[in-house]
Amino acid sequence: MISTQTPKHSASAEDYLRYTSERVNAALEKLLPAESDPPGELHKAERYSMFAGGKRLRPALCIGAFEACGGAGDSVLSAACALEMVHTFSLIHDDLPCMDDDDLRRGRPTNHKVFGEAMAVLAGDALLVQAFELVAATGNASCVQTLAQSLGSQGMLGGQVVDILSEGKAVDLATVDYIHRHKTAALIAGSLVMGAQMANAPENVVDGLREFGYKIGLGFQIVDDCLDLEQTTEVLGKDAGSDLENGKATYPSLIGLEASKRRAHELIETAITDLHALPLQGAVQGTVLETVARYIFTRVH
Amino acid sequence: MISTQTPKHSASAEDYLRYTSERVNAALEKLLPAESDPPGELHKAERYSMFAGGKRLRPALCIGAFEACGGAGDSVLSAACALEMVHTFSLIHDDLPCMDDDDLRRGRPTNHKVFGEAMAVLAGDALLVQAFELVAATGNASCVQTLAQSLGSQGMLGGQVVDILSEGKAVDLATVDYIHRHKTAALIAGSLVMGAQMANAPENVVDGLREFGYKIGLGFQIVDDCLDLEQTTEVLGKDAGSDLENGKATYPSLIGLEASKRRAHELIETAITDLHALPLQGAVQGTVLETVARYIFTRVH
Repeated sequence: MISTQTPKHSASAEDYLRYTSERVNAALEKLLPAESDPPGELHKAERYSMFAGGKRLRPALCIGAFEACGGAGDSVLSAACALEMVHTFSLIHDDLPCMDDDDLRRGRPTNHKVFGEAMAVLAGDALLVQAFELVAATGNASCVQTLAQSLGSQGMLGGQVVDILSEGKAVDLATVDYIHRHKTAALIAGSLVMGAQMANAPENVVDGLREFGYKIGLGFQIVDDCLDLEQTTEVLGKDAGSDLENGKATYPSLIGLEASKRRAHELIETAITDLHALPLQGAVQGTVLETVARYIFTRVH
Repeated sequence: MISTQTPKHSASAEDYLRYTSERVNAALEKLLPAESDPPGELHKAERYSMFAGGKRLRPALCIGAFEACGGAGDSVLSAACALEMVHTFSLIHDDLPCMDDDDLRRGRPTNHKVFGEAMAVLAGDALLVQAFELVAATGNASCVQTLAQSLGSQGMLGGQVVDILSEGKAVDLATVDYIHRHKTAALIAGSLVMGAQMANAPENVVDGLREFGYKIGLGFQIVDDCLDLEQTTEVLGKDAGSDLENGKATYPSLIGLEASKRRAHELIETAITDLHALPLQGAVQGTVLETVARYIFTRVH
């Protein structure tokens, strides 16, 4: 039984993430083509990575922004599911041998390890296409623009390009910042913006949530850099120490572990202060967004 | 000087393709991010494959359908450019070592040979994203749906999956038909449908043009199969005999060269007969579409 009742103000991050991921998982189950529909192998590869136990953080931020802006009901689910599809597309392509060459993701062999490289490329492509189809079907043109801009050469893909080109090179903090802002923060900011746009929020609120998203997105990636150093492969569900192995410059490699954690903390606190200054109208206001933002800083994987 | 005057009824296919490709190339030049904008390497890789001298057949069919349905002006150019972007995305990904592993395309080294595999994957991804952004910006939601359906698992990507899975296996004509209809014909049909939708054509015309597109698309691919056997690498601008080398079943390998050519001819003639039965309203009616369809059958590369 999936609850569609928004949790109370006081919901913990775990409760809110459970509430949103149950709704998103149920919607994805219906939206993704069945393995029994041809070509079954493609749909199997898509579902393998889509149902690998992700936290559904981007959908949670999208739904949280939607509800904080006064939105209600299921209309936001298309955008939320599309965000998880494009996030999964990016993981599948990033893990490819020609990119980060990772064997493990969310505790399981990566997509290309199971289905082969060709199928992994195509499964990623297919998820990207379906994501746009879904958001376009909402009729909210601004939302499609946001999705495209969050992903394109001034968003996630731009960050991935600079990340790839910087491997094994001595890069400065400005470059790492560029990579993190584009590769990770752009889609997190886009998630909040899409939720706000689906609730027809006014422009100043959309802009404020975008800025909030960029800050917590950068914080999220700095925490990720730290976890890659501190945690085991078992806890992370992906190869620990892979940044070091791939010759990637990270926050801790440039400014140290403690200073990195302080930077992430500052970013998230500033983001939350700014969030509460926004004229949010929804029943949950900024509370769930604050809770989810704080969760980013305390997570262990 | 680019002519925006639709060529006369009697225009040759070459004239019409020149008219449409000049308009499309000028629009693409403005739409694609500049190499001087970061990340320059990505934009360079995108432009390398976008400006490799393609015939712009899909944009020509899109503009032809638009004009045959009474459309006029530049509003169709977003759809036409998006079609060339997604076609180029598919070529870049298809040529990857994990797919068809081709070294030559349109007479030049393939994208990954010049920019590396990682950049080729990302350049394809970025073109796909920008294509959706462009079509979404027209505000024509049906057109976005058509683009997604032409590309998704029931369209081009579905065909590519079955193509990859069939390599080196004994497959029957029904499978080759499935591959050709999905991998090639779906996007050609989509090009005509998008042109018609941009002109707000009635549903029966849209359906008729879709059917016309599937027939000429299948004819196009059968001709392609034959050219791969008969022509030299120099004429084709891509590796000749690569189907045989990749263990791909083709029309000629299953029913012979002469029977394949007859089949392509029949498809195109039936398509043209059906085309002229459609209630087209535009100044050029079906004439340019007939001309371009006939060109498919006589082309040498």
